Amino acid sequence: MRKLEGELVLMRIFIGESDRWEHRPLHAALIELFRSRGLAGATILRGVAGFGPNSVVHTASILRLSAGLPLVIEVVDSQEHLDLVLADVDRMMSGGLIDGTGPCAEV
Amino acid sequence: MRKLEGELVLMRIFIGESDRWEHRPLHAALIELFRSRGLAGATILRGVAGFGPNSVVHTASILRLSAGLPLVIEVVDSQEHLDLVLADVDRMMSGGLIDGTGPCAEV
Amino acid sequence: MRKLEGELVLMRIFIGESDRWEHRPLHAALIELFRSRGLAGATILRGVAGFGPNSVVHTASILRLSAGLPLVIEVVDSQEHLDLVLADVDRMMSGGLIDGTGPCAEV
Repeated sequence: MRKLEGELVLMRIFIGESDRWEHRPLHAALIELFRSRGLAGATILRGVAGFGPNSVVHTASILRLSAGLPLVIEVVDSQEHLDLVLADVDRMMSGGLIDGTGPCAEV
Repeated sequence: MRKLEGELVLMRIFIGESDRWEHRPLHAALIELFRSRGLAGATILRGVAGFGPNSVVHTASILRLSAGLPLVIEVVDSQEHLDLVLADVDRMMSGGLIDGTGPCAEV
Repeated sequence: MRKLEGELVLMRIFIGESDRWEHRPLHAALIELFRSRGLAGATILRGVAGFGPNSVVHTASILRLSAGLPLVIEVVDSQEHLDLVLADVDRMMSGGLIDGTGPCAEV
């Protein structure tokens, strides 16, 4: 377990559950990337409804097995460590969003 | 598909799953508002437990069909586009919360 | 119902669903703490996958009854009220993360 030091940053990535990267689900590829680079932690939240740039509303209640529901991936680490994966994240995504919010406090 | 340009902002809205607007679920009315105004995207996350100003704890495991679980709606667009819907969002909500966090980067 | 006044802050806490505090689930203990102190509201979001400092990837689809999925607890109140619980939150947690983001607007 890597010791966390200094100020931590929360990065949030908005993608769709059906987005793919090299024949794999994009969210699984991203989590694998973050883990292989030793980032401190990541969480995938799945939305129950939403729409993206193509304006289709996906709803869990109507389309239960939909692969198109929105996902939010949250990654927490130092800015330096997040910078190490940002180029790869950019390359793997097409049309998603990255949101870098303020600092976190480790407890 | 509208081309996104400039700095993007994340707006988060906290409401309850049972909140209504003109005989419809409020969350559905909000998503319809955002889509009809051409916003870039929105995601509804459903909490598994929580409480609001009335201090009732809603828990998914106890009350599986509860209409009262907390929802977080996340909307991403430029500040200018979010400003266009803010007055309507204010009018439709009663007692919820809006959280405007920092800028997003489109990828 | 306490009247909310002034600027509100969003605090986000990252823990695991299996984390415990004095023989109880930590998330239930935290929600009880926030409610007993009269905080304005809290929401628990459950991730569908993720990993933490111990680098284990938890996935809802593989391990449906897993107690180890990541949770994000979001608490909204004034900075003054959040400060009142922060010492207790620190004492109850071990290894999680607290993220204090920008101000909220009550509507």
